[in-house]
Amino acid sequence: MTSGVGMLLHEGLVMVSDSRTHAGVDHVASYRKMHTWEVPGERVIVLLSAGNLAVTQSVLSLVTEGMGEEPERRSMLDVPSMFEAARLVGGAVREVHRLDAASLKEFGADFNASFILGGQIKGRRLRLFNIYAAGNFVEATGDTPFIQIGETKYGKPIIDRVIQFNTGLREGLRCALISMDSTLKSNISVGLPIDVAVYRRDQLKLAVRKRIEEGDAYFIDLRKHWGQGLRSVFQTVPDPDWAP
Amino acid sequence: MTSGVGMLLHEGLVMVSDSRTHAGVDHVASYRKMHTWEVPGERVIVLLSAGNLAVTQSVLSLVTEGMGEEPERRSMLDVPSMFEAARLVGGAVREVHRLDAASLKEFGADFNASFILGGQIKGRRLRLFNIYAAGNFVEATGDTPFIQIGETKYGKPIIDRVIQFNTGLREGLRCALISMDSTLKSNISVGLPIDVAVYRRDQLKLAVRKRIEEGDAYFIDLRKHWGQGLRSVFQTVPDPDWAP
Repeated sequence: MTSGVGMLLHEGLVMVSDSRTHAGVDHVASYRKMHTWEVPGERVIVLLSAGNLAVTQSVLSLVTEGMGEEPERRSMLDVPSMFEAARLVGGAVREVHRLDAASLKEFGADFNASFILGGQIKGRRLRLFNIYAAGNFVEATGDTPFIQIGETKYGKPIIDRVIQFNTGLREGLRCALISMDSTLKSNISVGLPIDVAVYRRDQLKLAVRKRIEEGDAYFIDLRKHWGQGLRSVFQTVPDPDWAP
Repeated sequence: MTSGVGMLLHEGLVMVSDSRTHAGVDHVASYRKMHTWEVPGERVIVLLSAGNLAVTQSVLSLVTEGMGEEPERRSMLDVPSMFEAARLVGGAVREVHRLDAASLKEFGADFNASFILGGQIKGRRLRLFNIYAAGNFVEATGDTPFIQIGETKYGKPIIDRVIQFNTGLREGLRCALISMDSTLKSNISVGLPIDVAVYRRDQLKLAVRKRIEEGDAYFIDLRKHWGQGLRSVFQTVPDPDWAP
């Protein structure tokens, strides 16, 4: 199962994804679910995917190689805006659905896929989209500046409490990692490594592109610090006067 | 949507449930989802329910009024053991399934119901069961001393971190309330009032039976304390040296 989050903040973009895939408990593997297209000074696009791996990998191939007939053929490296990038991903999902959905159905497998797409192209604004299996999409706004896909619930409470549009990039990153830690702790099918991308608005290059592997000293420290902190706050919460 | 948790601890039992029911967003109401049968000195039984309200209410009526033919007729007030109480609930679910499932299916409604049953009968040990829609059940053990039903995920991380068999009753209660607060914050379809029951092992009477209503001063204080505590721990978690 995947867990991914994207945050559209005042200072920029934070995207974090796990990389565990499983088809039954005896077929667990790691696949990168974060993909980036970066042309420094011109464009930064980050795509997180969740769902049926065969579907999401096909979508990825299509948007990388390009879709459509010349001269309208488009790939992630030449779409003129993030809106067009979202349409490209949506179109690719629809194309994969056209090709594969009937066969999947015959074998009782769901056609499920969802994506978080964030980034900026020179001269345009930074945008963040949630793209669905039907190929349609919605955009994150100042009121709701984050999007989650995959296994979202365990990690949502801390994001709900902390993240606002004005939250800083460092705080956003820290929150995304803590959220991922909660998910890892409660759902064994979400696992390391974790992929991280951080983009500072208008810089047109990634500020951070990092993979956190099993045994990463910082992540171990974060988990310990957060777990101990939670337990210590827990101990200071007062009991009701009607407690046993 | 319901959220309910039961904890089987060294010192006794903690059971907490919300009370919101909804059938679409324009039909939201409060229904008690915690029911207790208490004969001081003889038995304490607590039942939490989640799922289709028509199903769970029918189950409740059957186990209260009694099922079976004389002289084997049994209700919650005369089952001789908690195992028999769990079988009674399971049998009632199967009876409601027999009567209603086909009609529900015709209208596209799922037959879904789940229960947490905890308690103790004189001369027997304290037990806690999770009963499923199929009428079968599993028991909480020292290794896995808690059971959740309904909307479980938002509230699970804090329980995962805190609850062990040796956790005290007061800590267990506090944890259950914090867990419920996380769920309330992230899922609008889970709501106050919250029903609470706490039972001290071998006492054969409830130590606490309490309903926390909207505006309850203690619960407001707990929410504030926990929220502030989380945010303050969040601020002390270190950033990675590769943070932007």
